[in-house]
Amino acid sequence: MGKILVVGAVAGGATVASQIRRLDKDSEITVFEKDRDMSFANCALPYYLGEVVDSRDKVLEATPASFYKSKQIVVKPYHEVTAINDHKQTITVYNRIDHTSFEETYDTLILSPGCSANTLNLNSNISFTLRNMEDTDEIENFIENQKVKTALVIGAGYIGLEVLDNLHVRGIDTTLIHRSMRVNKLMDEDMNQPIFEEMEKRNINYRLNEEVEKVDGNKVHFKSGKIETYDMIIEGVGVKPNSEFIKSSNVMLDSKGYIAVNERFQTNVSNIYALGDVITSHYRHVDLNAHVPLAWGAHRGASVIAEQLAGDASIHFKGYLGSNIVKCFDYTFASVGVTPNELSNFDYQIVEANQGAHAGYYPGNTKLHLRVYFEKSSRRIIRAAAVGKKGVDKRIDVLSMAMMNKLTIDELTEFEVAYAPPYSRPKDIINMIGYKARNK
Amino acid sequence: MGKILVVGAVAGGATVASQIRRLDKDSEITVFEKDRDMSFANCALPYYLGEVVDSRDKVLEATPASFYKSKQIVVKPYHEVTAINDHKQTITVYNRIDHTSFEETYDTLILSPGCSANTLNLNSNISFTLRNMEDTDEIENFIENQKVKTALVIGAGYIGLEVLDNLHVRGIDTTLIHRSMRVNKLMDEDMNQPIFEEMEKRNINYRLNEEVEKVDGNKVHFKSGKIETYDMIIEGVGVKPNSEFIKSSNVMLDSKGYIAVNERFQTNVSNIYALGDVITSHYRHVDLNAHVPLAWGAHRGASVIAEQLAGDASIHFKGYLGSNIVKCFDYTFASVGVTPNELSNFDYQIVEANQGAHAGYYPGNTKLHLRVYFEKSSRRIIRAAAVGKKGVDKRIDVLSMAMMNKLTIDELTEFEVAYAPPYSRPKDIINMIGYKARNK
Repeated sequence: MGKILVVGAVAGGATVASQIRRLDKDSEITVFEKDRDMSFANCALPYYLGEVVDSRDKVLEATPASFYKSKQIVVKPYHEVTAINDHKQTITVYNRIDHTSFEETYDTLILSPGCSANTLNLNSNISFTLRNMEDTDEIENFIENQKVKTALVIGAGYIGLEVLDNLHVRGIDTTLIHRSMRVNKLMDEDMNQPIFEEMEKRNINYRLNEEVEKVDGNKVHFKSGKIETYDMIIEGVGVKPNSEFIKSSNVMLDSKGYIAVNERFQTNVSNIYALGDVITSHYRHVDLNAHVPLAWGAHRGASVIAEQLAGDASIHFKGYLGSNIVKCFDYTFASVGVTPNELSNFDYQIVEANQGAHAGYYPGNTKLHLRVYFEKSSRRIIRAAAVGKKGVDKRIDVLSMAMMNKLTIDELTEFEVAYAPPYSRPKDIINMIGYKARNK
Repeated sequence: MGKILVVGAVAGGATVASQIRRLDKDSEITVFEKDRDMSFANCALPYYLGEVVDSRDKVLEATPASFYKSKQIVVKPYHEVTAINDHKQTITVYNRIDHTSFEETYDTLILSPGCSANTLNLNSNISFTLRNMEDTDEIENFIENQKVKTALVIGAGYIGLEVLDNLHVRGIDTTLIHRSMRVNKLMDEDMNQPIFEEMEKRNINYRLNEEVEKVDGNKVHFKSGKIETYDMIIEGVGVKPNSEFIKSSNVMLDSKGYIAVNERFQTNVSNIYALGDVITSHYRHVDLNAHVPLAWGAHRGASVIAEQLAGDASIHFKGYLGSNIVKCFDYTFASVGVTPNELSNFDYQIVEANQGAHAGYYPGNTKLHLRVYFEKSSRRIIRAAAVGKKGVDKRIDVLSMAMMNKLTIDELTEFEVAYAPPYSRPKDIINMIGYKARNK
């Protein structure tokens, strides 16, 4: 493999470099990161703001120095890759510190540039996006220095909901707005109801079908005509792929700027690989393209690429199931399979159950709502969604394993749950879904 | 099917009667129960003693009157079946109230007599076994009337450990003895270490390789020579099948008195079915006999028998995986697959991992120990065991689903976990097991 260059040093990039080194002690590996920090725990950021995660060291998992020392991998922060010449096998790198550019040759190039936060361009010094540790530090400093007491969160996706929860926990009076009725969009719309109930219970203001028109100092003007004052605004309005620089090459992007990879995580140019949030691939359990920009996929990609390059090249990626989960106040929302938007590709039926997460007589029981979608012709499970205070993650993980094996809805009757009163029921809710499907 | 008789009215018997009625409104169904109560929540009994489950109604799920009203099924308590004549298709029933016997004919007979608690026959009025609600009431009354302050639990199996935990929670100073070093025998021996640590933390006395020689009033004489005084003794020294009465028939029993059934839950006599703790069957994932006397199997048996008799006879039982779980103090111990004793039938290897149950930076993280056994030749998983304070049930349930699909150890790398910091890691401990197996 010789000389390996990696673009991006967060989950995908840092992990793939490290996995290659595990299998291959000799190749020269260099990682270019456009921003300040490498290998930070992306998913920890909202919790760091909420002071739920208290230690900075726990969020920043490695530094270029520690990484070089343990793995002999060079990581260059503030180095932005601005172009690829796949014929010459070079990349152009812009040093953001000294504002110089240089070319670097490669034998193998691995792209893990991730995504950037979309912004509403409110032209306001109280508005922030949250995507990396630099953003987090900026927000944290702002909260401390400005003694932030009120905040507006724009957007009720994963980031918006986690930030809302965490700012609330921190004692900041936080309001949520969302531009449509459709919050937390990987979850079935009606199953999001507890989000609203939890906000009401906590006297958190929220407004749906609401947008910001302009910000004037601390005054926020809304589409609804309302004008309100906030100390801080956090925008959680989606992401866009960091793939502009790829347009200089023959690597193909889809219409939204994502890179389609094959089962080896190769792009259309065979010595250029890609992984992480920037790629699109396919589902494992159904024949459909999939874009699943989550941490598990980045780590799986890192392992498969390392195997391709330095290990057992017969190890392929068999596709995503789309497992996802978010904690919002006391509730957990999780799903696996195709998204609600993608369901229209299938002729499906639904089976659902509402029952206690464990034996009713055991204290602390709470209600669990599980819904499973199956394709009518094959009876195979194509999607499952669950909401509750307890036991949601377990059921979705079990169903992920079931869907990995293309199980039919009927076979759920055969799932042998580990039963004792604190954990489940002798007929688990997953079994119940199978039994209920008998007449469908 | 005509006239259906069921022997036993606890988990297996009550459920099978109810499942048949669901599919078949016409058959005459009668259930004979030798003891006082029907359909009680067996697994709740230790928790009822611990006052963790506070309501008697939650433990006694149905009465003969309520059952007849909702399902038109006759349940006769205190009616012990003492013989079967499978040629004549009759059973002999002994009425324990008026001490009369009578014969009853059947078209289909279903045996779910369960097991009885073994006893050391200590000839002591302070010693009890715990198997049903009558036992529980007796113990409860004894604790209250005698103001029990100290107790001795004999035997560190599931019942012994759950009773110990619950009596301790209730404030009774409880001592545990076990006749060998090998407690909680479905778990790997070394993985039981937290049981001892938890007892030490709570100043609970325990002695291994210890037995009771005799009891004299409140004085207990031990094999070790020790003599100690206790207010109460609970014996948790295993069970024996209630199958004496079956010996009068052509239904075959194995050397231990259990009934081997086929994939339809039929005995060797085709119109006699059996289910629950009294049966033996086979494993699903490996070719080996299995005896799994737990609640899931009883419920699954009830459904399959009902399908055989009144529904879709193509639905068969594909075998056990042996999923089991117990809470002991703050820890959960669970396993799935063949038992430690049965491992000698296989040429296997072990992969294990010790890591946090979820992201390290998220508060409340605790260590989880997972060990997976796979067969060398096929690389299929044959057993998994886990111990920890959190996340144990989830991993064993996911692995149960994996083993249901005969997964290899290597395929665990492909399990797509639902990841967010409170629940797991981007590479879950299950993935880690798969990755660690690569070099084995």
